[in-house]
Formats: sequence, C-alpha cells, structure tokens
Amino acid sequence: MFRRGLLVVLSGPSGVGKNTLLNLLLARMAGIRYSISATTRPPRAGERDGVDYFFFEPEKFLAMADAGELLEWAHFCGHYYGTPRSYVEGSIARGTDVILDIDTQGAALLKKKLLEGVFVFLMPPSWQALEQRIRGRGKDTEESIKERLNRAREEIDHLSDYQYVILNDDLERAVGELEAIILAERCKVVRNDVAGFLAAFFAKN
Amino acid sequence: MFRRGLLVVLSGPSGVGKNTLLNLLLARMAGIRYSISATTRPPRAGERDGVDYFFFEPEKFLAMADAGELLEWAHFCGHYYGTPRSYVEGSIARGTDVILDIDTQGAALLKKKLLEGVFVFLMPPSWQALEQRIRGRGKDTEESIKERLNRAREEIDHLSDYQYVILNDDLERAVGELEAIILAERCKVVRNDVAGFLAAFFAKN
Repeated sequence: MFRRGLLVVLSGPSGVGKNTLLNLLLARMAGIRYSISATTRPPRAGERDGVDYFFFEPEKFLAMADAGELLEWAHFCGHYYGTPRSYVEGSIARGTDVILDIDTQGAALLKKKLLEGVFVFLMPPSWQALEQRIRGRGKDTEESIKERLNRAREEIDHLSDYQYVILNDDLERAVGELEAIILAERCKVVRNDVAGFLAAFFAKN
Repeated sequence: MFRRGLLVVLSGPSGVGKNTLLNLLLARMAGIRYSISATTRPPRAGERDGVDYFFFEPEKFLAMADAGELLEWAHFCGHYYGTPRSYVEGSIARGTDVILDIDTQGAALLKKKLLEGVFVFLMPPSWQALEQRIRGRGKDTEESIKERLNRAREEIDHLSDYQYVILNDDLERAVGELEAIILAERCKVVRNDVAGFLAAFFAKN
C-alpha cells in the first residue's frame, strides 16, 4: 500500500534527552531519516556542518526564508533557526519518514501548515531531574541557567498542544514508545492509499 | 500519568486470522485483556463457555439487551451476538485496556457510542489467500462457502471506516503492528491526565 512519508516532530525542553533518543531511534528503525535544521548560531565544540546543523550566515538564512525555502523558522537568543523545506518535502513525497527536533514555537508553525504531521513531546521524569541535567553541564553562568530553566518551563507549558507524550524516565521504554508511535501512524488508514489497494485487491478475482 | 483503559476493536473478514493474532498479542503484551462476546449460537467443537464466548439462551440474551447490559448486539445468520457492557466498562475505568473481536456492524454501533475507541482492521494479503483459507476448512457446503465469501467482501468494504489497517501477510509483523498501535494510543495526550500530571510536576519545585 503506497503512502506518503510521515513528518514526525519531536519537541521537549532542553536537557530532556532528545538527541540520545533520536540517535537510538535512527539506529534501530528503518525508513526514517533525521531532518537537519539550519541555524545562524556558531557551531559548538564537536558540532559538524551538515550533520548536527546546517550552519549559515544570517544573510543566506534570511534569503532562504524570503524564497520560501524554509518550512518554519524563528529567532531565539540572537540567532535564527529553521527547517529546510526541500529535504523534508522530497523525502515525504518518496514515502520516507522524516523526524525533526524543533521547539514548541516551530512545531506550532508546522502544525498550521501540515495537518498530517505527528507531534510528539518528550517529558522529563521530574522538574528536579531536568534542573540537574541543565545545571550538570557545568559550563554555564547562573544567569544562563535561569534563562534555560525558564525556557524549559515555557516549553513544557505547550505539552497539551501535542498528540503524543513520552515520559523519559527509562530510555529503553521511551525509544520503544517513539518507535511504536511511528509504526502506528504508518498503519493509519487515512495515510495509506486504501482506495487503490482495494481496487487492486478485488480486481484480481 | 493516570489514563482510562483503551477500547480496542479488531475487525476483519472471517478467515483472516484474527484469533491467532489476538492470542499472540495477549500472550506478549501486559495491561490488555480480551473481552469475551456473548452469543446464542451453539458452541462448536472445542469451544468453551466463558472462554471463547458466553453461550446464552435467546431469552437471556434479549433480556440483557433490554436491560442495557450489552454495549452493542446484532442478529446474524439466525443467531444473536453482542458485547457485555460491565466487563468492558469496569476494565476501562480501572485503566486496563480491553480488546474486542467484532464485525463491522458491531464496530459501527460502538463507534457511535464510544468516540475514544481504537478501531483496527485486519486485511488478508490477497483475495485468493482468503478464499483458500475459507475453503480450506473443508467442512462447509459450497452454498455456505459462497455466503462466507460474500460476507467477507462486505466486511472488507468497510475498511475505510477504521482508523488503522494491518496487512496480515506476515504474522510476526502484524502482531508487532497491533502492539505498536496499542502502545501509541496509550501515549496520546488526550488519553492521559496531562493537567493533573503538570500540576504535580510543577508543584514539587
């Protein structure tokens, strides 16, 4: 049965463990790819262009936004972040699922455009655990930590805008749930060419 | 996060392999139970009362229907079939998922009553495979086989009324998909007490 690829949006506060979950998912599940975001912020240590992000100059980024080459984009803490359109749309048209890691603001913009998206929110097991994770990185000022905690709280306030929630208290269970959500969405009648399938099914009599 | 139990409805034409799939699912998945249907048809060889069906006299069945003790019921080929209400509602209220094996007519009745149900249709890989299965039992008259084939075709015509479709061309894949659908539905934000969860999450600060 032919179907278009899914657009899976994964959100959750900074420090909840989205990257670890995504890497595990992509390592074990076939037919789904990670869509790399574009940003104008400078690479952090170890980050590679075209792997972690597409790192663009602001001029290039804004030219892409103007040309409609970004599915969504936003300004946050002095930098631009966005989702390149062609990779996502090309994959979906070929029937390959795509997963995005974006914040609640970007997800809300996508939700307006793409009714068929799959919106998943990753929740930390407790506020204490999240604060520990955010403080634990140990290389931020108290002011920057406060800002990240405030932002985490704002992100979590959008949980009810999502279709699915995964509690990240056990990584193995969490990745199993994300995998199940994607597998279940692939089985949705509305996502499959059921009319074409039934025509072929009965034609062979 | 507390949630009510799911009501999972599995339909599919006679001979598609619903029983095998259900038995595998129930053997490997926790937190879900099979809801036994009630019927007035006599037990077939090997069928046990309270295991395969609740076998009732027509009078008792109709008295239950009158008293509102059946979630749905229908008359088919001279016999009544229905879903006892108390088992299903009790399990769901306690947060235990329930799975039902009912035909498209019964499923349509349930869909009207229970918006939150999960409706899954099991499809045979091909019409030829289904016909072979139906003929293969070898103990039916040609007339009875024709009737069952006609009925199978009618059932399949209702595929698009369902939320999920599973193609039963590989039993292991099919049971994995059914399991994924149930797991994904458990993760749905609307099915969980998200407001209560968030209040507790932030109260602990």
